[in-house]
Amino acid sequence: MRVEIVAVGTELLLGQIVDTNSTVIASELARCGLECHFQTRVGDNHARIVSALELALGRADAVIVCGGLGPTQDDITREAVAAVMGVELRRDPVALAALYEIFTARAIEMPASNLRQADVPDGASLIRQRSGTAPGLICPVGTQVIYAVPGVPEEMAEMLAEAILPDLQARSGAPAVIRSRSIRTVGISESKLAELVTPRLEALDREGPGAPTIAFLASFSEGVTVRITVKSSDEASASRRLGEEEAAVRRIVGAAVYGTDGETIESAVGALLVARGLTLAVAESFTGGLLASRIVATPGASAYFRGGIVAYDSEVKFSLLGVERGPVVSAEAAVAMADGACKLLGADVAIATTGVAGPERQEDRPPGTAFIATSVPGGPTIATAMRASGSRSRIREYAALRAMNLLRTRLLAE
Amino acid sequence: MRVEIVAVGTELLLGQIVDTNSTVIASELARCGLECHFQTRVGDNHARIVSALELALGRADAVIVCGGLGPTQDDITREAVAAVMGVELRRDPVALAALYEIFTARAIEMPASNLRQADVPDGASLIRQRSGTAPGLICPVGTQVIYAVPGVPEEMAEMLAEAILPDLQARSGAPAVIRSRSIRTVGISESKLAELVTPRLEALDREGPGAPTIAFLASFSEGVTVRITVKSSDEASASRRLGEEEAAVRRIVGAAVYGTDGETIESAVGALLVARGLTLAVAESFTGGLLASRIVATPGASAYFRGGIVAYDSEVKFSLLGVERGPVVSAEAAVAMADGACKLLGADVAIATTGVAGPERQEDRPPGTAFIATSVPGGPTIATAMRASGSRSRIREYAALRAMNLLRTRLLAE
Repeated sequence: MRVEIVAVGTELLLGQIVDTNSTVIASELARCGLECHFQTRVGDNHARIVSALELALGRADAVIVCGGLGPTQDDITREAVAAVMGVELRRDPVALAALYEIFTARAIEMPASNLRQADVPDGASLIRQRSGTAPGLICPVGTQVIYAVPGVPEEMAEMLAEAILPDLQARSGAPAVIRSRSIRTVGISESKLAELVTPRLEALDREGPGAPTIAFLASFSEGVTVRITVKSSDEASASRRLGEEEAAVRRIVGAAVYGTDGETIESAVGALLVARGLTLAVAESFTGGLLASRIVATPGASAYFRGGIVAYDSEVKFSLLGVERGPVVSAEAAVAMADGACKLLGADVAIATTGVAGPERQEDRPPGTAFIATSVPGGPTIATAMRASGSRSRIREYAALRAMNLLRTRLLAE
Repeated sequence: MRVEIVAVGTELLLGQIVDTNSTVIASELARCGLECHFQTRVGDNHARIVSALELALGRADAVIVCGGLGPTQDDITREAVAAVMGVELRRDPVALAALYEIFTARAIEMPASNLRQADVPDGASLIRQRSGTAPGLICPVGTQVIYAVPGVPEEMAEMLAEAILPDLQARSGAPAVIRSRSIRTVGISESKLAELVTPRLEALDREGPGAPTIAFLASFSEGVTVRITVKSSDEASASRRLGEEEAAVRRIVGAAVYGTDGETIESAVGALLVARGLTLAVAESFTGGLLASRIVATPGASAYFRGGIVAYDSEVKFSLLGVERGPVVSAEAAVAMADGACKLLGADVAIATTGVAGPERQEDRPPGTAFIATSVPGGPTIATAMRASGSRSRIREYAALRAMNLLRTRLLAE
């Protein structure tokens, strides 16, 4: 069963609001195992809404059209759907009674413009409104169907869950479920990851249609995510298959995996620290509080995070952290900063960053040059050189990710 | 000139990510006076990408296709565009050299899969990549054109601004210029601002079509922006009219305005510090490095920013910053933290934050409770209580904005 989504509203075409409705609908369709190949956005224009609906019906079994059911003159989805069905609008007494009821409950008189919201294409059935004034519509077009829902996110979500998805599942007759799992990795490039996973991709390809799919998503502040999607007849077998594929990817990728789904590298490091009963401190130069801020963004960080020193000015590095006077973009400075942070903040473990965020060079080194030091109990404090490219914020984000991963790797090796 | 947007990615169809790229592109097209009637989202499927592109070219003069230029096997936009153009892909030596340069700068070996990113449809020209590895493509199709850009938001935005919009404007030949100015405010709500500006809005309405327009955009981490847009026949008169409207808004809104366009509250505070020859330090508890990180994100911060103490654990507040043992979510603690930061980091001016980011209560205070202290030379250190609501990250972002504005207000009053 194939479903398309048409979002209606000139404000979408002008980029004034983000179309989250289509995302929510798409995600629910996928969860129910319903395929969606195209999504369209169109403005408040009769001819173009009609054309978008006809095009969608030419490619799919059902269309969900979202928006344009309000009371004002630019809300014309009802008229467009009626034109596609080849029928007239009629004022529905049940919809009308519901409207009067809503306004009576609000103790205000109903503006005449709201009457239009009781107009329905002949042959359509109603999806009763609960929070808003516009009813939804189920509009048969031959053996196909158009569902019309309001653009208000809560009203749309309500009607989707209570009326449209059950109707679609009844029509499709197939109780398939689609489930995904995100496997989060760091320290390995998207292309390298794809190269490693290729044999697995090829094996899945040989399984043919219906086999799990694997996709890659790169983010310079969070690493690369491997997303596995499985389609199955029931929840239990979907979950089993996801588990098998996750295990296969973990075998291939190894320790570069730091978590799944909502886990962050900070939460992964946090869990390692808690398991070992260790506390953490940071000393930051060019990342300038970003590392601390990412750590604090994790709920529960107070169990292990002592705090940090943002030693932006070199003098702060010398006087507060005990860095020797001299170049500060160096491995030696990073090591001294990490040791200084442990001592000053009374922590067991520390990360320190020093480098050049740009746009100018510093100590004759180009933007993107950096040293990261990690200190753990009973081992030497180790500095690692790194190189990054791009804007100031990108360099800082990437360094923060690298820094967290260096600590993660050391904690895992203990 | 009519432009359509095609966003490519199965993750969009599965509702796994929100398509903000189309929104950004649409908003920029509108700003430049270019019409957009349809936007389409399609998955990583050759036949369907080709069909979406052909459909869009049947309705518009130009198409911007976003996504599917990565190095992995599911990135097939290059192939689809070549099919629509009826040409082959060829490996471009300039694109190839740029790729090698990027990997050399990152000091890592280029995986073989990245070679594909140097493949371009015959007859297409390149949009040089800056932050990412994929170049953009300008692909003529008869008198029409397809622009292909990566799906990474910052790479897309860069290519849109630097290559695509100028090319579209040159093609459209329209002598009209549309220019906008963003006036950034803080400490005043969107509805209050709209109320104050209403008389000006009404005056512009009376001018009729072609008059400047005013829109409001609220952000909890940057305050409310008043965006003025003017359309004119030439650059000089557009600029004059923008200046007049900016002056009118500034007269109405007063000191709540902290800057225009790309200026941030951090750059505004930075300019005040530089003008007065003062240095800055911060002491942060629940904002946990966010304030320092925002300050460091401003190029040139090294001229005035000494550094910060992230005193996340109470013990760090007591031992390092000299806060008296007792409750730490208090005005007294905030004052002691600000004074301690000045002393410890050798700064003239300091900001300190202490509060409850949540989700749990702390010292029997609910999430969103906070105290912010500011210290300036020759005046008392003053603590201000604040309340915020929402998620942990929202409370921290809002507090950082409030803290910067409290310091800005004190520096202006000096």
